Amino acid sequence: MTVTLHVCITCRAGQTLMEGETAPGARLHSAILAAGVPEGVNVVPVECLSACSQGCSIALSGPRRWSYVYGRLSDASAPDVVAGAAAYAAAPDGIVPWRSRPEIFRKQSLARIPPIAVVAEAAE
Amino acid sequence: MTVTLHVCITCRAGQTLMEGETAPGARLHSAILAAGVPEGVNVVPVECLSACSQGCSIALSGPRRWSYVYGRLSDASAPDVVAGAAAYAAAPDGIVPWRSRPEIFRKQSLARIPPIAVVAEAAE
Repeated sequence: MTVTLHVCITCRAGQTLMEGETAPGARLHSAILAAGVPEGVNVVPVECLSACSQGCSIALSGPRRWSYVYGRLSDASAPDVVAGAAAYAAAPDGIVPWRSRPEIFRKQSLARIPPIAVVAEAAE
Repeated sequence: MTVTLHVCITCRAGQTLMEGETAPGARLHSAILAAGVPEGVNVVPVECLSACSQGCSIALSGPRRWSYVYGRLSDASAPDVVAGAAAYAAAPDGIVPWRSRPEIFRKQSLARIPPIAVVAEAAE
């Protein structure tokens, strides 16, 4: 199953940027692409995940799965983000055993959301 | 369309509870039910939204909608949570105009996640 890794590319991570300087969020996005996107993971840039005070931030989501948001990241986090995204994609319900999660996923969670409910009106 | 309001009922909001004391998250859940659940909103208790340092927390989600997580709430927030959930349910894409959001939704966002992508394999 394909999962989505959203990366906030507008995040300034609390920094004041010089003119022409690349935003930390965009640097993280580039670093993730450079680290190699795992099979089953679709990397999608997004403008703002509304976690500005805890940036840079990313979100993992997919149909019938828990969604996760992680923060306080930088481009140096890219290899761990990629590894964590691969583990998430490989877990049928998106729940990766605690010990198999990269440290940033264990310690820098901002939030998780249960799977979207399939309501009766949509299922009919 | 029915949307889901998840309320973390295990949240201690950083407090040490006395034996038998109701957790702040459970109090928030009760206060939301007492405030009156709006039409189109399904209130679902959940054990941990992984936003423990920013509790109490809630999440709003629904099919083909942005999801939102809010934090630093208490049972006193219940009327605003209910009003915000009603506005979210009434907005077809879940995006409520900024000025129509309760103040806690404007100032206490923990994260938002774009709608779950409907991947080709699921659409076939």
